[in-house]
Amino acid sequence: MAGRNQDNSDHPYGPSVARLVDEFVRLPGIGRKSAERLTNYILSCSDGDANALADAVRGVKQRVKRCTVCFNLTENDVCRLCQDPRRDRHSVCVVEQPKDVVALESSGAFQGLYHVLGGRIAPLEGIGPEDLTIGQLVRRVRNDSVSELVMATNPTVDGDGTALFITNLLQNDTVTITRLARGIASGTVLEFANQEMLADALRGRQKF
Amino acid sequence: MAGRNQDNSDHPYGPSVARLVDEFVRLPGIGRKSAERLTNYILSCSDGDANALADAVRGVKQRVKRCTVCFNLTENDVCRLCQDPRRDRHSVCVVEQPKDVVALESSGAFQGLYHVLGGRIAPLEGIGPEDLTIGQLVRRVRNDSVSELVMATNPTVDGDGTALFITNLLQNDTVTITRLARGIASGTVLEFANQEMLADALRGRQKF
Repeated sequence: MAGRNQDNSDHPYGPSVARLVDEFVRLPGIGRKSAERLTNYILSCSDGDANALADAVRGVKQRVKRCTVCFNLTENDVCRLCQDPRRDRHSVCVVEQPKDVVALESSGAFQGLYHVLGGRIAPLEGIGPEDLTIGQLVRRVRNDSVSELVMATNPTVDGDGTALFITNLLQNDTVTITRLARGIASGTVLEFANQEMLADALRGRQKF
Repeated sequence: MAGRNQDNSDHPYGPSVARLVDEFVRLPGIGRKSAERLTNYILSCSDGDANALADAVRGVKQRVKRCTVCFNLTENDVCRLCQDPRRDRHSVCVVEQPKDVVALESSGAFQGLYHVLGGRIAPLEGIGPEDLTIGQLVRRVRNDSVSELVMATNPTVDGDGTALFITNLLQNDTVTITRLARGIASGTVLEFANQEMLADALRGRQKF
C-alpha cells in the first residue's frame, strides 16, 4: 500500500484518474496503454455501470471464502461439490489451486470430491507443508473413509515433490494413491513433444 | 442493469465470482478468458488491494467532472489548463473528446486553451449541435476575446462536418479559424500512404 501514492498526481484529469490508471496497471496482463483505455471507459460509462464493477470487486472479497471441507472457493460454509449427494465421497482429487478444480470439472471425467492444498511445497520460497492444507487432508482421509487419493498437483518439480510428501505421510494408511496420467498431450503432434513428455508416454504405454 | 442478473449463478465459485467475471467482460478489450484471469487475481490478492481498485473506480465517478470553461475532465470547477496563467487565452483548440486534449498536450506544440465538444455532429446517430458544447464555444469566442480557433476535430466526415458547422456559425465574427495540417504522417513512408493522405499532402505543400 505504501507505494500506491507515489505517482498519483500527474494526470491531466487529476489524481483520481491517475489513481485508477495505477490500479488497473496492477492487474495481470494490463499495461499502461490498456489501463488508460479502461480508465477512459470508466470515465465515459454510466455511474451505475462503474459502481456495479466496484461492487462486484468488493463483493467477491466479502462473500467468497474457503470451503471448510475441501478448501475450494465458495460463498457457503461447504462448497457446492462437497454438498452434492451424487459425488463419490470415497475418491478425493488433490489439487494445488481452486482454478485446478474448475479445469478438472470442465473435463467431466471425475465424479469424486476435491482437496485444495492452497499451493505446493516450495522450500526456496519458504512454503512448507504447514502453509498448505496437508494436515487437514490427512485427517480427512482417516476420518471420512477415503479409499482413493488422485494426485493432480502440477507436473513440475514442486508439484511432484508435494505429491510425494503426501504419499509418504499416508504410506501406512490403506488409501490407494494414484496420479494423473502423463504423456503426449491430446490433440498435439509427436514432433512438438519434448523428451520428458515422450519418456512419460513410453513408460506409461497401454494396451490398444 | 436489467441484463446484469441473467447468467450470474453459474460459476463453480458461486454468484459473486460469476458477477465479477461478467463485469470484467464488459470492459473494452477484455474477453472471457482475460476476465477469468483478472477475477482469479482479485480472489488471490489482499482485501486492501481489491478495495483500492473498487475505491478508485468509484472515486473517478464521484470526483471527476467537466471544466466549466472548456469541458475537459477535471476534479475542480476549472481545469488545470484553464487556470494556468502561462497559457495563451486568445487561442482555443477545439477537440471532440478529453482524450484528444491529452494527445495534443503530449506534443507540447500548443500553448493556448482547449474546448471539448463532447463528440461530433452525427445525424445518423441522432447527435445534433445541441448535444455538444457548441453554444458554449460560440459564447466563449464572443465574450473572452478569442482571436484564433484551431479546429482539431478528427479527420473524418463527421469531424470535418462539425468543424465546418462551427466555422459557418462564426463567419461574421472576427475570430481566425484554422485547422490542423494534414498530409503524410511523420515517420511513415510514402508507399503506405493512401490516396487521400497523398492528395492532402500535395494540396498543403509548403516552401522548403
